[in-house]
Amino acid sequence: SLMEGRSKFLEFPFVSISHENLMRDTFSMLDNRLQSQLLPCSLPSDIQHFQNQTGSSQASLHIRAGNNNSPVAVVLGSWLHSELPTGGSLDITSLIAYLNSSTDAPDFVFEIIRSSPTMLVLILDLPARKDLVLWPDYLKTFYEDTQLDTHRQALERLPEVQPYFSSSLYIRTIFSSPTAITVRIQTENGGAERMEEIIRDHLDPISKQVLGIWLDYCVSAKREVGEEERACLKKRDGLARKQSIEVDLGSSFPRLFGPEVGNRVLQAIKEYCTV
Amino acid sequence: SLMEGRSKFLEFPFVSISHENLMRDTFSMLDNRLQSQLLPCSLPSDIQHFQNQTGSSQASLHIRAGNNNSPVAVVLGSWLHSELPTGGSLDITSLIAYLNSSTDAPDFVFEIIRSSPTMLVLILDLPARKDLVLWPDYLKTFYEDTQLDTHRQALERLPEVQPYFSSSLYIRTIFSSPTAITVRIQTENGGAERMEEIIRDHLDPISKQVLGIWLDYCVSAKREVGEEERACLKKRDGLARKQSIEVDLGSSFPRLFGPEVGNRVLQAIKEYCTV
Repeated sequence: SLMEGRSKFLEFPFVSISHENLMRDTFSMLDNRLQSQLLPCSLPSDIQHFQNQTGSSQASLHIRAGNNNSPVAVVLGSWLHSELPTGGSLDITSLIAYLNSSTDAPDFVFEIIRSSPTMLVLILDLPARKDLVLWPDYLKTFYEDTQLDTHRQALERLPEVQPYFSSSLYIRTIFSSPTAITVRIQTENGGAERMEEIIRDHLDPISKQVLGIWLDYCVSAKREVGEEERACLKKRDGLARKQSIEVDLGSSFPRLFGPEVGNRVLQAIKEYCTV
Repeated sequence: SLMEGRSKFLEFPFVSISHENLMRDTFSMLDNRLQSQLLPCSLPSDIQHFQNQTGSSQASLHIRAGNNNSPVAVVLGSWLHSELPTGGSLDITSLIAYLNSSTDAPDFVFEIIRSSPTMLVLILDLPARKDLVLWPDYLKTFYEDTQLDTHRQALERLPEVQPYFSSSLYIRTIFSSPTAITVRIQTENGGAERMEEIIRDHLDPISKQVLGIWLDYCVSAKREVGEEERACLKKRDGLARKQSIEVDLGSSFPRLFGPEVGNRVLQAIKEYCTV
């Protein structure tokens, strides 16, 4: 049943080939590297996969907590598919990894939101877990020395890429490291084919490189975190994670899946993600 | 001599008409509203206006500290003009207002960097003085309830407007409120005339509206700041202001004005701006 949940999640049955490959590869990369640190996914099966009454909205969820020796608090993979009343569909795939308070290194957030074959929104960030204004050394260690910005710059050069601003200012605030990639990609001229090309030739390598930096320099970082700082991290992480779930999923899940299913799933996610 | 310094600063002798009007108007707006709260500019005359040996770089500086009853720590106006070896010139005009630790309300930063008649960079922000992830109420009060983002959105709609990313990640971090306007405007097709139009019809009203919000909702905000919080604000403000002067001016002033003049001016600015 554990394997079933994982394989269901890894099917990504509704997204395009290159999008599916990208998600599967990044998930495997994370899974391979963290394998020994993660507990099995213990979600009930009706939360691993769920849908609304008519089946027009479906989603898969894969959540694994880190074990006692790991700096990883939790890894969340998910996909969501919803047929839109207008005829198209909304597809969201995401891979999020939160660290625990034994370290202050950044988290990993990777989300693709697609509402048509020629439009997507990409959020790819290592959100800081401290106030960067107060900690220039932290900025240097995780954002400057790792050359993270080169990947943002590479993507920015594509003419189809535009900045994306979430309508929620709190979401903007959370995913706002100085190297955050928050973009809208539109391929009106080249159509769906050009979008496939951009995903395969650009998003794919960039996402893997950013994930690689997170695995090499954040998960593996040896950080000294004192007692007081630990309490600060817990408070800040708790707020950021709770708010991002509420703002991001809290408004859409009950609407897409009905209040009963939507709230049950939200509750399960919160239990895993809030300190 | 006080009036002389002010009027020299207000001449803006090197920028275009609409740019000059914009700076003069916003400066007057600030000056009129804060007049009774500010001490006279006490800068020595060789720091109110200075240039390099050949006269190819010139600058004017106008700095007024807030009085004891004011939440304003300091107001800085400046312009800088430098002939470039390539033939063009670099013009920077800025208006910055820092609050003191009797309040935690946001600061005001407004800077225009122009390296050709058809290209400019605009930074217009009310930089937060607290970690917004930890203080959602602060975000709501100063950024959501004030509708600040509508002004960023209005500007974003112009086809000539693109996002701007400072090469310094620390500068990005400081001017990164969720409603920060950090854009590059290029008018290659419409030339210098179109740029004048954009400054007059868009930058002018937007800058005044943002300044108005700062005057009405930040300077005038009644905030309770406890002893401990005050110490936090002092530390954070001190770091942010010192770093922004060092990164922004510290590298260019000695180069543009020679080390002797450059460092003397830098020192004077630091004395006013760091806690």
